[in-house]
Amino acid sequence: MPGEFEDYLIKKMLAEIITIGDELLIGQVTDTNSGWIATQLNLCGIKVKQITAVSDDKAHIKQSLEDSSKRADLILMTGGLGPTKDDITKHTLCEYFNTSLRFDEEVYAHVKYLFSRFGKEVSELNKKQAEVPANCKVIHNAVGTAPGMWFESSAIPNPQSLIPNPQSKVYVSMPGVPYEMKKMMEKEIIPRIKLHFKTPHIIHRTILTQGIGESYLSEIIKDWEDGLAPDIKLAYLPSPGMVRLRLSASGDDEQYLTALIAEKVNALNLLVPQYIYGYESETLEGIIGELLSEKGKTLSVAESCTGGMLAQKITSIAGSSAYFRGGIVAYSNDIKTKMLGVSENTLKEYGAVSEQTVREMAEGARKNLNTDYAISTSGIAGPTGGTPEKPVGTVWIAIAAPNITIAKKFLFGDNRERNIMVTANIALNMLRKVLVKE
Amino acid sequence: MPGEFEDYLIKKMLAEIITIGDELLIGQVTDTNSGWIATQLNLCGIKVKQITAVSDDKAHIKQSLEDSSKRADLILMTGGLGPTKDDITKHTLCEYFNTSLRFDEEVYAHVKYLFSRFGKEVSELNKKQAEVPANCKVIHNAVGTAPGMWFESSAIPNPQSLIPNPQSKVYVSMPGVPYEMKKMMEKEIIPRIKLHFKTPHIIHRTILTQGIGESYLSEIIKDWEDGLAPDIKLAYLPSPGMVRLRLSASGDDEQYLTALIAEKVNALNLLVPQYIYGYESETLEGIIGELLSEKGKTLSVAESCTGGMLAQKITSIAGSSAYFRGGIVAYSNDIKTKMLGVSENTLKEYGAVSEQTVREMAEGARKNLNTDYAISTSGIAGPTGGTPEKPVGTVWIAIAAPNITIAKKFLFGDNRERNIMVTANIALNMLRKVLVKE
Repeated sequence: MPGEFEDYLIKKMLAEIITIGDELLIGQVTDTNSGWIATQLNLCGIKVKQITAVSDDKAHIKQSLEDSSKRADLILMTGGLGPTKDDITKHTLCEYFNTSLRFDEEVYAHVKYLFSRFGKEVSELNKKQAEVPANCKVIHNAVGTAPGMWFESSAIPNPQSLIPNPQSKVYVSMPGVPYEMKKMMEKEIIPRIKLHFKTPHIIHRTILTQGIGESYLSEIIKDWEDGLAPDIKLAYLPSPGMVRLRLSASGDDEQYLTALIAEKVNALNLLVPQYIYGYESETLEGIIGELLSEKGKTLSVAESCTGGMLAQKITSIAGSSAYFRGGIVAYSNDIKTKMLGVSENTLKEYGAVSEQTVREMAEGARKNLNTDYAISTSGIAGPTGGTPEKPVGTVWIAIAAPNITIAKKFLFGDNRERNIMVTANIALNMLRKVLVKE
Repeated sequence: MPGEFEDYLIKKMLAEIITIGDELLIGQVTDTNSGWIATQLNLCGIKVKQITAVSDDKAHIKQSLEDSSKRADLILMTGGLGPTKDDITKHTLCEYFNTSLRFDEEVYAHVKYLFSRFGKEVSELNKKQAEVPANCKVIHNAVGTAPGMWFESSAIPNPQSLIPNPQSKVYVSMPGVPYEMKKMMEKEIIPRIKLHFKTPHIIHRTILTQGIGESYLSEIIKDWEDGLAPDIKLAYLPSPGMVRLRLSASGDDEQYLTALIAEKVNALNLLVPQYIYGYESETLEGIIGELLSEKGKTLSVAESCTGGMLAQKITSIAGSSAYFRGGIVAYSNDIKTKMLGVSENTLKEYGAVSEQTVREMAEGARKNLNTDYAISTSGIAGPTGGTPEKPVGTVWIAIAAPNITIAKKFLFGDNRERNIMVTANIALNMLRKVLVKE
């Protein structure tokens, strides 16, 4: 009976992620897979207990499989597949499950098909992709040659039952190439996980703030935080120029949890409306894209210190060509004059990093690129180039709108990469505030 | 005697990294700390055995400390410090080492100093930053309020010895803010690690290739790979449009290992010179920056499908204003005409994604922005916007040089982000090849 396991699962259902590959342990590749997988699992109400990166080493992989299976019900692995990896994961899984490799004709047909599209024959090396441990269900890899593998080991074997045994542990092995892994998770693994496990309810709500540091924010919202119900957890997630607040609740009653969190989010919105720009996985470039599309308005940029990052963020949104007409990266002064019409006098009298210049840049972009709105930036990104009056980190940002141009000065630190990122984010938020008001 | 441990250490010296924080397990923050730490440890000849991400939970942190200390000699932790984290790491370390918190006046003075710079008093919450486990050495945090902590536990206690006991395990706790952690590692932790441990030699050499896929490359260099000495390991590290090859050797004789690897790198250079663009942590934008600086030449860009990413990459290099004058992000056709002088006829007859247009864009940027070289891109980044003749992923890239303009066509997939990244990288490499020849 599925009912008898329900309580156990709601309280205890846990997953772990094991990433396999020396390249992670040597620091040459940043592991973005495990964070993405964790997000997907959370959306199905599955908590991730631990993420472990291990080397391309059989004994080490087996040890981490054993450790993980003591803590978790679902173990997801990425990497260590493919011929150049010597298929370390497949051989290890054979040893772990005390089985051997079998040749899968369907996988081989798919590998042949993928090679044929490029007019190529399958090499002996690539033929090995069709070998899988005998006890696994093969998971189709629509966009690559290494198949996924699904293993079940029953804690309480129940061969008579026709319903899936929710207490059997599941092990899934996926390729390490992010693009292949993501397609496989979305199309194949997540639906199977939902079928196999009865999952509890975990509700997350993320509030995105900009313009206030973590410690100041925590002081302002202290009473609100102290008033959180004991089943709600709050996390501060700072990133350059921004702080995300994440509320999490887990329990049996989804409706109750949702209402509880919604109430707290509303209260926060009344408390610090000036700092909140969005929710969940929204981005400033996505939000201004929606605002511009709704209003049927257009945008251009004139960048000095951000050096193209503003344009790059805006055009990272599919469909941005509908409202973004273009930008000028005016690194040298004569390009500010020639392309944006900044007067030579202004540059001589006030310098490139000044309110006057940044205003003329925004207005010039709006006029010359023929748009409704324009953003401009000018500053000293660093690490060198500062003066006593204008130290490294001095940045001016302007927004030119149909009836008004606003400009603001900021003073950041001496970290070039961070200064560029923070400037781009603040500039987008300044435009958002203008768009919301109009 | 230090000598007696030497063999043990060279063979077995291992480190582990534990990152603490629910935000990692929920996938809302990508952990870049552990990869960076791993790189630093490798540079000192220390192998990382495992990287573990655990939740903000005392029992879980203690368990992972116990597990790690069975495998490793050096355990580095990040995160879980600071008042908004409820100082979970400090309390856990007290329990783990069976000690209690003491108030450190020096840390408090530093916290007060940091607050005073912003004209602020230290709140009761922030005063807690000065509490540290009684058995640790405090590590100075020059740029933040949470101190680092250094713990030693002797496997073979030797109170009579005046020399450091290289067999005592070391635990280090650092803040999770990347900027603070990095400064602390560089200035304080790495020097202490080198003092404490006698480290083995690990030599890495990374060869950067562009323009060939992993499996084709592995076929071409098969004989070279088969001829690698057994003490050298090869890893393929693919990223969008690029493959990095990493050779690693570890052993006693640094000179021998260095020579062995250098010989193989030279052989590879003779085998596939057309695909190799650099070594180690070099970047295409850094390499072209050096080439342009050496030659005293200037650069501009005219971007359509890359939408600012080319300019952003080029300006990510400190000092790029010496050779990069600026760029035009020409997303709409009339900006291609107005700012870059692309003829309306060309756009009408051949379309924006064509050899003719991309040539005129590059030549127009070179002329209008008054530079020696210019790069241009025009393509259909996707995911929509393709036609039967010009499907999504069709990209043209041109390089305009003083005496010649070259243009090339590419056909990528339907992943917008990847198409933009690959296009930018290929465009930079095309310029690099032109610069190297001239």
